[in-house]
Amino acid sequence: MPKCKLCSAQSVIWLRDQNRGLCQKHFEEYFLSRVKRAISKYKMLKKSEKVVVGLSGGKDSLVTAWSLKKLGYNVEGVFIDLGFKHYSEASFKAVENFCKRFNIPFERVDMKNKFGVTVPELLSANRRKSCSLCGSVKRYVLNKIALEKNAILATGHHLSDEISQLIGNFLNLQHEYLWRQSPILPEEEGMARKIKPLCLLREEEIEKIAEILQIQPVREKCPFSKGATTFKNRKLAKEIENIFPGASYRLYTQFLEKKEEIFKPHEVELKRCKICGYKTILDICNFCRWKMKWEEKSGKLKVKSHNI
Amino acid sequence: MPKCKLCSAQSVIWLRDQNRGLCQKHFEEYFLSRVKRAISKYKMLKKSEKVVVGLSGGKDSLVTAWSLKKLGYNVEGVFIDLGFKHYSEASFKAVENFCKRFNIPFERVDMKNKFGVTVPELLSANRRKSCSLCGSVKRYVLNKIALEKNAILATGHHLSDEISQLIGNFLNLQHEYLWRQSPILPEEEGMARKIKPLCLLREEEIEKIAEILQIQPVREKCPFSKGATTFKNRKLAKEIENIFPGASYRLYTQFLEKKEEIFKPHEVELKRCKICGYKTILDICNFCRWKMKWEEKSGKLKVKSHNI
Repeated sequence: MPKCKLCSAQSVIWLRDQNRGLCQKHFEEYFLSRVKRAISKYKMLKKSEKVVVGLSGGKDSLVTAWSLKKLGYNVEGVFIDLGFKHYSEASFKAVENFCKRFNIPFERVDMKNKFGVTVPELLSANRRKSCSLCGSVKRYVLNKIALEKNAILATGHHLSDEISQLIGNFLNLQHEYLWRQSPILPEEEGMARKIKPLCLLREEEIEKIAEILQIQPVREKCPFSKGATTFKNRKLAKEIENIFPGASYRLYTQFLEKKEEIFKPHEVELKRCKICGYKTILDICNFCRWKMKWEEKSGKLKVKSHNI
Repeated sequence: MPKCKLCSAQSVIWLRDQNRGLCQKHFEEYFLSRVKRAISKYKMLKKSEKVVVGLSGGKDSLVTAWSLKKLGYNVEGVFIDLGFKHYSEASFKAVENFCKRFNIPFERVDMKNKFGVTVPELLSANRRKSCSLCGSVKRYVLNKIALEKNAILATGHHLSDEISQLIGNFLNLQHEYLWRQSPILPEEEGMARKIKPLCLLREEEIEKIAEILQIQPVREKCPFSKGATTFKNRKLAKEIENIFPGASYRLYTQFLEKKEEIFKPHEVELKRCKICGYKTILDICNFCRWKMKWEEKSGKLKVKSHNI
């Protein structure tokens, strides 16, 4: 590894797209400046606002919380116990250690207690791909919690995630998703504002900052995630960056700038869920339907779901 | 290699996206049926029309000519001697052998004789990437020849080429090119109809049919093509098919079906070149400008180009 471009110290990372290496100190500065840039460029957050980070125990969300704290935001962590037993416990440990070390207040929310059902229970009663169902549930639950706390919701999605999604949406020509993709979703009735402060940093950069800061994410892998399409999209996103260094950043920022010029609008009229008020294209949102299905299957429902 | 899905013979190719192997006979049938499908789906060509194939000596254009001949079209080959000396000579040999063997009439057109300049000469006088200039010149020259022959122009572009281009245009968000990409460009004043009969077949399938038919393309590589972006786009297109078998076909056909629904129109008003009448966004087309530049540099021009 050559010397840091900005001082004579040993560099810890080689940024191929920028053709420079950076030492630990300058990489940390660069990293935070990219988070800052994302926050201001996409008008994500003000210093006076409270921001909640959904902490899964993985590196991305931990690094998000660290960045926001370091930049002086009023940040709180939330850990959702999705009910994966051993995996959830290990994830909680990682979150707890991290929050204690960096002095970030956090809350543990138990899905079973608060929402009456766990993700494995929902999976057992609904024919859905596990990552898709789980992602949907996490968005639902985190939104409710952010609303309760009157806070903005930050997630750990980074540039490589965003490019995976963008390429996946393009390969499948999913007009609606292409149109909606954004690092910020503004607040509206029943919906908290959602932001992705790491959206201008690649996965490799997040891995490196976690390594430097000795942030210890959960080591176990989710027992349900094997073979997920997300992994394939991510592989493709890596390949793009590998063949065309810098393409991810260019594509993502240009896409956000030009999408209204290139794509026809595709707004979908959303309603409010009749049970919980969450945004949905149907009368009842996914979460409430899945939960009813599980209650029905496990004999807990008084009124059958098809009567609703 | 397992047995052919349609008979008990040994298969010669494994079509991963279709999860089946095919023997020589059935692969040839499948191959021609895809060419037929492309021709009818995109309304490329009638049996009563004459079609000229630009034969470079590479496998793609040779296989295009073979397919059209085999399907009973009135096909003629054209070889353009671009002026690459040894490489052009070797390419011509490949074309000549092929046309004699498959009984396809063909013509050799010498660029220097017919257009007064060679590609290396144009390259020497113009700061342009070689593959981009050469591609542009070939389109220009082949268009003129097809017009003279009152024929449709077919080129050897295949699905992998089309996907490379599509992904390249998407990565660079080139709205105009995304909008224009099509396996058929209809005829208009001064422009012959252009078609890509192999647009539903992947490069690997074309390599295999060439191998089976013992078609011998030119072995030499173009001396100017090193490091071309095309190769990188092609690598990426391969990777996409590798990660998501069948994605190329799906994306391409869906893209053509849905592009008007998803993308805003991006029509560019084109003029006629004041010198030769070719379509151009400027007053004088690229070819005429490049030629003038070369004439100027080599002291052959009577009127200086900046006076025009």
